[in-house]
Amino acid sequence: MAKQSKSNPRNVAQKLIESHLVSGKMEAGEEIGLRIDQTLTQDATGTLVMLELEAMGLDQVETELSAQYVDHNLLQTDNRNPDDHLFLRSACERFGVWYSPAGSGVSHPVHMERFGKPGKTMIGSDSHTCAAGSLGMLAMGAGGMAVAMAMCGKPFYLKMPKVMGVKVTGRLPDWVSAKDVILEMLRRHGVNGGSGKIIEYYGPGLKGLSAMDRHVIANMGQEMGHTTTVFPADDMVRQFLRKQEREDDFEKLEADSGASYDEHDEIDLGRLEPLIALPSSPGKVVPVREVAGEPIYQAYIGSSANPGLRDFAVPAMMVRGRQVHDRISFDVNPTSRQILENLTELGHLNDLLKAGARLHQTGCNGCIGMGQAPATDQISLRTVPRNFPGRSGTEEDKVCLCSPETATASALTGVITDPRDLDMDYPRFDESRTFYVEDRNIRPPAKYPELAMVEKGPNISSLPQFEGLPDSLEVPVLLKMGDDVSTDEILPAGSDILPYRSNIPAISEFTLTRIDPSYPERAKKYRDKGSMLVGGDNYGQGSSREHAALTPRYLGVRAVIAKSYARIHWENLCNFGVLPLSFDDPEDYDTIEQEDELVLEDLHKALESGDEITARNSRTGDRYRLTHTLSDRQVTMLLKGGLLNMMRESLAS
Amino acid sequence: MAKQSKSNPRNVAQKLIESHLVSGKMEAGEEIGLRIDQTLTQDATGTLVMLELEAMGLDQVETELSAQYVDHNLLQTDNRNPDDHLFLRSACERFGVWYSPAGSGVSHPVHMERFGKPGKTMIGSDSHTCAAGSLGMLAMGAGGMAVAMAMCGKPFYLKMPKVMGVKVTGRLPDWVSAKDVILEMLRRHGVNGGSGKIIEYYGPGLKGLSAMDRHVIANMGQEMGHTTTVFPADDMVRQFLRKQEREDDFEKLEADSGASYDEHDEIDLGRLEPLIALPSSPGKVVPVREVAGEPIYQAYIGSSANPGLRDFAVPAMMVRGRQVHDRISFDVNPTSRQILENLTELGHLNDLLKAGARLHQTGCNGCIGMGQAPATDQISLRTVPRNFPGRSGTEEDKVCLCSPETATASALTGVITDPRDLDMDYPRFDESRTFYVEDRNIRPPAKYPELAMVEKGPNISSLPQFEGLPDSLEVPVLLKMGDDVSTDEILPAGSDILPYRSNIPAISEFTLTRIDPSYPERAKKYRDKGSMLVGGDNYGQGSSREHAALTPRYLGVRAVIAKSYARIHWENLCNFGVLPLSFDDPEDYDTIEQEDELVLEDLHKALESGDEITARNSRTGDRYRLTHTLSDRQVTMLLKGGLLNMMRESLAS
Repeated sequence: MAKQSKSNPRNVAQKLIESHLVSGKMEAGEEIGLRIDQTLTQDATGTLVMLELEAMGLDQVETELSAQYVDHNLLQTDNRNPDDHLFLRSACERFGVWYSPAGSGVSHPVHMERFGKPGKTMIGSDSHTCAAGSLGMLAMGAGGMAVAMAMCGKPFYLKMPKVMGVKVTGRLPDWVSAKDVILEMLRRHGVNGGSGKIIEYYGPGLKGLSAMDRHVIANMGQEMGHTTTVFPADDMVRQFLRKQEREDDFEKLEADSGASYDEHDEIDLGRLEPLIALPSSPGKVVPVREVAGEPIYQAYIGSSANPGLRDFAVPAMMVRGRQVHDRISFDVNPTSRQILENLTELGHLNDLLKAGARLHQTGCNGCIGMGQAPATDQISLRTVPRNFPGRSGTEEDKVCLCSPETATASALTGVITDPRDLDMDYPRFDESRTFYVEDRNIRPPAKYPELAMVEKGPNISSLPQFEGLPDSLEVPVLLKMGDDVSTDEILPAGSDILPYRSNIPAISEFTLTRIDPSYPERAKKYRDKGSMLVGGDNYGQGSSREHAALTPRYLGVRAVIAKSYARIHWENLCNFGVLPLSFDDPEDYDTIEQEDELVLEDLHKALESGDEITARNSRTGDRYRLTHTLSDRQVTMLLKGGLLNMMRESLAS
Repeated sequence: MAKQSKSNPRNVAQKLIESHLVSGKMEAGEEIGLRIDQTLTQDATGTLVMLELEAMGLDQVETELSAQYVDHNLLQTDNRNPDDHLFLRSACERFGVWYSPAGSGVSHPVHMERFGKPGKTMIGSDSHTCAAGSLGMLAMGAGGMAVAMAMCGKPFYLKMPKVMGVKVTGRLPDWVSAKDVILEMLRRHGVNGGSGKIIEYYGPGLKGLSAMDRHVIANMGQEMGHTTTVFPADDMVRQFLRKQEREDDFEKLEADSGASYDEHDEIDLGRLEPLIALPSSPGKVVPVREVAGEPIYQAYIGSSANPGLRDFAVPAMMVRGRQVHDRISFDVNPTSRQILENLTELGHLNDLLKAGARLHQTGCNGCIGMGQAPATDQISLRTVPRNFPGRSGTEEDKVCLCSPETATASALTGVITDPRDLDMDYPRFDESRTFYVEDRNIRPPAKYPELAMVEKGPNISSLPQFEGLPDSLEVPVLLKMGDDVSTDEILPAGSDILPYRSNIPAISEFTLTRIDPSYPERAKKYRDKGSMLVGGDNYGQGSSREHAALTPRYLGVRAVIAKSYARIHWENLCNFGVLPLSFDDPEDYDTIEQEDELVLEDLHKALESGDEITARNSRTGDRYRLTHTLSDRQVTMLLKGGLLNMMRESLAS
């Protein structure tokens, strides 16, 4: 593969980075700092971001645009969700942030509809922020702390990723849609295949993929562990922005002719078929026909992984005049107020209802375990991006990921069904049908922010302050975990836990309980002395929630040793003062047992000088050589106990 | 007031009772038995009813029509709700019951739309079953066991109520609607003003109240503690049934000329004004203008207390082209699939959405604390029937009850607002506008019920079978309690316990834990040998939940001795085979200590012959004379181990 030259020509990813580079070199693996134009926060992570801004003493956000969405915590079974909503609304007033209230929709599609701009950078405290790559943005999920820093006008730091160019050719056949494209990528590359890479799509096939189709692909690229996904800003993007009455925001952004990529792949759309990811990983992809005929309990459409008007309109056209199988729960989750209004106006909503759909409120809903849990041991087909075990709310779940076409075909028959096997013409949705823009309920920054009063309900608590990293650790390994532990396992979501996201002492009681229910009790005994976690490969995969770093730290975890890390969680560990180490020899992993005590000495000097770090196992006497990939900046941060301490010092001086 | 004569003329309530009377005399206070034509169950209570039918060995229901609705437990945050839904669906197949799945709507309006028939009787395991009085039915809420008995073809027993006649004259002014009529009744009579009475509305004013308006009044009559509410079946009812394409189900039912009532009241609709019930009782009714100007957090429309198409259409017309105040959560809860489809078709849904409404799934939702909880200490205006403290889910709630007009006016201004004070013409909804019927998703009884397999998820267990009462007991008193112990203390509700209502072994672990957390563990040791409880006065007050008798029996309780009993709990004890005894000399109570062993001998003979029952205290040697007020039927039931055993024998023979 050709290594790109440092000079022109540039691909889209390089152009986006180059135009926002404030530090570092554009060489794969180097830490670079980027100017951030926009930020996105949602309610489950945003309350913490706002508390961080408050703790730092920020006046007004320094970005071109910051937007706060309320889309996760919508169940409101007690005061905690609505208290959070009022807190967020008031904090947006205070700091100069757009506020999209409950009912306006899922952050990613709403941001794309109303705020996304080609050529801009964005970070968001939601792992699917990458969806904005569909408009030619460089958009990345990050920990809330990194987003708070960007809102303060600070750069966002990351390792310069490689760029994987995916040439798209051909045209999607009937019954095959954007979801099948990203499922095919997952089938080829697996859940770690995007690690350290920006995936850039280009080529003649893109003219058959609308901006919202690209959203599907960029969004779910996250399940490949990518840094992000980018698409060019071409005529399809212009069309989308014209529909949104924002054509002025369009700016063409395409790869230079002759641009090269670090890695290559190619997809011929015409050769794709309906695919499905089986329980319980987005990487377990097989053709739908391979598993056809299995009875299902639920067909679920919605979420940021299939958010577009067409993702509801096509199902509506499929069920028009028909009834879904009478045992099926056919759950419809509109992704934005604009889309729901258009579905209603176009008559699609009633076609869905008449066929038996249960219409739910606009939001993330069951995709993040907020309702619509499937019955025990019953198959649920969903258009959502993730099917990690238990994420649906049901422990013994069997969630499969597929396109709206496959989910709807299966709803009609009651069994997993390749939509090509229905006796039906493919109802292509005409994207050009008139529809109207809806954003009247999204609230602009306050005119007089100085008058804003931040409202805090009883469940919103200040952030704990952590001390710096000690020079030596003599601490037990309280949990030894396998490969691919997700942040869903480290700090679960779900309706009983999410309401505590503004309350660290309360939410820490759920830390790692999916793996070991006794963990929080055991950890609390070592809160002062400190403790450690050992993980396998790809530790901390999945969502970007910083609580997965914050609550272990709150319970006393001072270091993690893993074979390898998922990027965002690794960063979150640093930000909250937990030292993320790796085994020099991965086989050392096998010699450690849970409850072993490890001794690490002279840490300050070792970290500052780049010397080797050694851990001694008190039980066996074994010594382990440990490595890290911390930058100097991160070492300083860790010694101070995390980013919040560092920023507090910096703003105070 | 004139006492009615035993002969003609009859009022509507008397006609309904007379035509269904199977035992007793129609004299106020006498126990009467009524033939029951229809039953209604919802999911929160229906699972136990179905388990009871299973325990009795019922083949097919003996009613003209039984319908099971899934409208309460729709949040589905884990497997338990959907497992219950599948269980109910399969039990409906098995026993010949109509099944209205999640998404089809709230039981009361759906039953009215699709099944209600003038002249019929109905009992339902939901306290608002009385709403069907709007169609000229005699419809009453009852315990699950009573509903199960009715489904087996057995009569429903109650004390013959008095009939309060309310003469309705005049015509509702602009901005005043049916909700204000029942709020006026609550203002006049309070929350206990209907006790022991059927409220019957008649008079020339009724021609201005549609069948759905009458539903509002009959439904919320429950908050007056009525036995039930009835309306005549007149032309307004015929019109309603015609719209529902069921005109054949119409049967005229009106009071005979010269009919009289036990009590009298009169309402001139023309003199009513917008009213509001303040926190936290439906009886705290004042004119809206008295509290106008208070800032609100939430305006909530929906529930069986304002379920009609007009209750959503009028708000939609009010907000058309406007925006609700940007701090308000404007929550819209469609009450049936039919109503949602019509709102959509008529364009009202989009008017609500554009104004900022949050559209929720069709069902009971926030009315029974399933979501949409208000923020702490913030005012919520709701069209629901109840505002008991904490029912919204938020402990420190401030819920007010009002009409859709008042809720919507307040949503627009952000403060409590009398809708007459808006600068707006009253948008009268034309009930005659074409709309269509929707019941395709409501499932008729199975054609081949013998093929039905009852599906039980892991949280659903068959009811335990209890043996008959032994002839002698030699058992410990495991708990000695004071006066006024409520069923909430015997078996608590709450979101952590309610999901176990189909799982007696699991829910029994919460028995009496409010009084003594060690009780279940201690009781289980004596499950085979048996044990006893001692209570003070008014034992078992509060809610009618049968679990408060069932779970002590499951843990081995064979008898209770109390100073006195609350009526429903006393009945429930008999039904589940627990012998309820009283002290002949209340001072004996003081000589018993917890853990004392009591010996009761020759119980069978004593109960059958009416002889005295004596208990000997093994510790002190004291002998206690014990009394009971069991009927012969109840003695037989107790000797057999309860009503389920008795019914099983009866159905088998």
